[in-house]
Amino acid sequence: MNTLIQSIPPLDHSAVNRAQERQAQLTKPAGALGDLETLGVRLAGVFGTGRPDPRGVAVLVAAGDHGVARAGVSAYPPEVTPAMVANFLADTPHGPGGAAVNAIARSVGARVYVMDAGVNADLPDHPALVRAAVRRGSRDLSAEAAMTAEEVEVLILAGAALARQATLDGADIVVPGELGIGNTTAAAAITARMLNLDPASVTGRGTGVDDAGLARKVEVVRTALARTPTTDPLTVLAEFGGYEIAAMLGMMLQAAALRRAVILDGFVEGSAALIGVALAPHLGEYLFPAGVCAETGHAAQLEHLNLRPMFALNLRLGEGTGGVLAAPLLLAAAATLREMRTFAEAGVPGAEKEPE
Amino acid sequence: MNTLIQSIPPLDHSAVNRAQERQAQLTKPAGALGDLETLGVRLAGVFGTGRPDPRGVAVLVAAGDHGVARAGVSAYPPEVTPAMVANFLADTPHGPGGAAVNAIARSVGARVYVMDAGVNADLPDHPALVRAAVRRGSRDLSAEAAMTAEEVEVLILAGAALARQATLDGADIVVPGELGIGNTTAAAAITARMLNLDPASVTGRGTGVDDAGLARKVEVVRTALARTPTTDPLTVLAEFGGYEIAAMLGMMLQAAALRRAVILDGFVEGSAALIGVALAPHLGEYLFPAGVCAETGHAAQLEHLNLRPMFALNLRLGEGTGGVLAAPLLLAAAATLREMRTFAEAGVPGAEKEPE
Repeated sequence: MNTLIQSIPPLDHSAVNRAQERQAQLTKPAGALGDLETLGVRLAGVFGTGRPDPRGVAVLVAAGDHGVARAGVSAYPPEVTPAMVANFLADTPHGPGGAAVNAIARSVGARVYVMDAGVNADLPDHPALVRAAVRRGSRDLSAEAAMTAEEVEVLILAGAALARQATLDGADIVVPGELGIGNTTAAAAITARMLNLDPASVTGRGTGVDDAGLARKVEVVRTALARTPTTDPLTVLAEFGGYEIAAMLGMMLQAAALRRAVILDGFVEGSAALIGVALAPHLGEYLFPAGVCAETGHAAQLEHLNLRPMFALNLRLGEGTGGVLAAPLLLAAAATLREMRTFAEAGVPGAEKEPE
Repeated sequence: MNTLIQSIPPLDHSAVNRAQERQAQLTKPAGALGDLETLGVRLAGVFGTGRPDPRGVAVLVAAGDHGVARAGVSAYPPEVTPAMVANFLADTPHGPGGAAVNAIARSVGARVYVMDAGVNADLPDHPALVRAAVRRGSRDLSAEAAMTAEEVEVLILAGAALARQATLDGADIVVPGELGIGNTTAAAAITARMLNLDPASVTGRGTGVDDAGLARKVEVVRTALARTPTTDPLTVLAEFGGYEIAAMLGMMLQAAALRRAVILDGFVEGSAALIGVALAPHLGEYLFPAGVCAETGHAAQLEHLNLRPMFALNLRLGEGTGGVLAAPLLLAAAATLREMRTFAEAGVPGAEKEPE
């Protein structure tokens, strides 16, 4: 695991420079493609070429249960987790999977991978289900450490292995996704500790708890944080996290180590990213946030990561849905840099006065 | 033309209701897909089915020159218009067209159509160029009416014909796009008059004029508006518009009349939409704005149209680029409504307390 953490290279700055030079000569007013231009240039640095050509998109959905879900922090019962895993894998008239992430992935041509990172159920065998569970759900983070250090390492490596498989299958863009009743509570605790913020400012309604549920959730996070003052990233993850969060961290680290772009979906993914950039500072250069999700605390994560999201569609579903939805925008950013002609190539007159 | 204007039906409210009922039962917390849910339901109303299945996407780029461009309102010379038309049509190693709209369209699988709506040049023959010009560029709107009423009608019908062709070729989603040095000046004049706003509040930097150029541009718009107090939509279009704006209006009207979804790109497209909804109130129900473009005045247009954009990527290029970029988001919205399973179908437990 330490090898993985230490193996994330900085962006290829020579490719970034070549991309910036080319960007300035393309047949459009300077800056007219807005954020697509900065996204394209960063993709050049990720892929080490001035004309990035990312192909496959994969969304890796890790599912895990949370001991804390018994504390009334979610609008849904924990039985939803295994039922939704089955939904991700179901045969439907439209293809595999009947959940939002399946429909969106089909729509944008992305491949879906499903991992049991620690679901509290005896999941039926399915050829497409990646089994990585070491325990049926995490411990209750309000009472004790959610995971052991060893469990965290196993799940990080399992996430890394799945990301490696996805890249071998052709993915140049990797979208970690998650499912887990209770996991916005875990993400809130991680975010509060890593950013040194009050739980109330980073704890949201998740799948839709009411005011009383939200107050309970804030108290649960506060109780958890009071158990230990640790700020060591991997210990914070073990204390407050969950198996699918550890797995997503492994996916991000491995994708970056293999110089692939990672789309960052929502608040739970963001909590894994906070741990990740604390461990491996260059990781942030490989992360492309999809949108600001409606969950409180997500904006604070993105500000800390110094990353600008691509849209604001008020998604708060998870599953990697926002990330898959953003993939076409990233592919388009690469396409403009790669395929547009320059003013000279096209014989188009430039601006009469060049910008200063 | 009047037949076309009068032929735009309201949304299919029975389909909207069926979609809303289905949306509420899909395997996700209520509202968790945010704006995708409202987009999907509106698409149901457009296509008259509870499970919309839009297929092809077409971007129809109309190019026209503007007499006012000689007044120093643009950072680029008018010679850019014919050179960019050639760029839209050029053979490149990546396929037809070396402009941003071509690269993005290839990336998202959209088809590009290019129309000479009134370019001030002798454009070479090209099998893919749709010829609809009646004059080599509009008249100078600061001195006289930019177009005659007859010219406006011819261009509206030409835009309609191209939209009809695109739907026959398989497009269910139509993106009007434009190119024309000087056309943000025309769009600003239309917007100021239709929304009764001061020119300074709706006139922006277009392709990138400096402060002096912007001041000149505002004065040009003010001078134009002082010529005539008309608020009749088609007269406003003739006085202040341009050939490609009239063509885009025809595309929007025809696409809506044929019950196709229209993605609204930027500020110039928005000026055509303002004329369109004044003529045919139901038109707005078929319009899906891509993003808020960086051009001043675009936000005011969207507020008047009561439409919420999908992203904020600071695009200000035109060509329909933002519209094509938004197409995958609209297709994904339809996909979730069409392909997701319901809680009952998937056997997933619902929320423990249903939202009130």
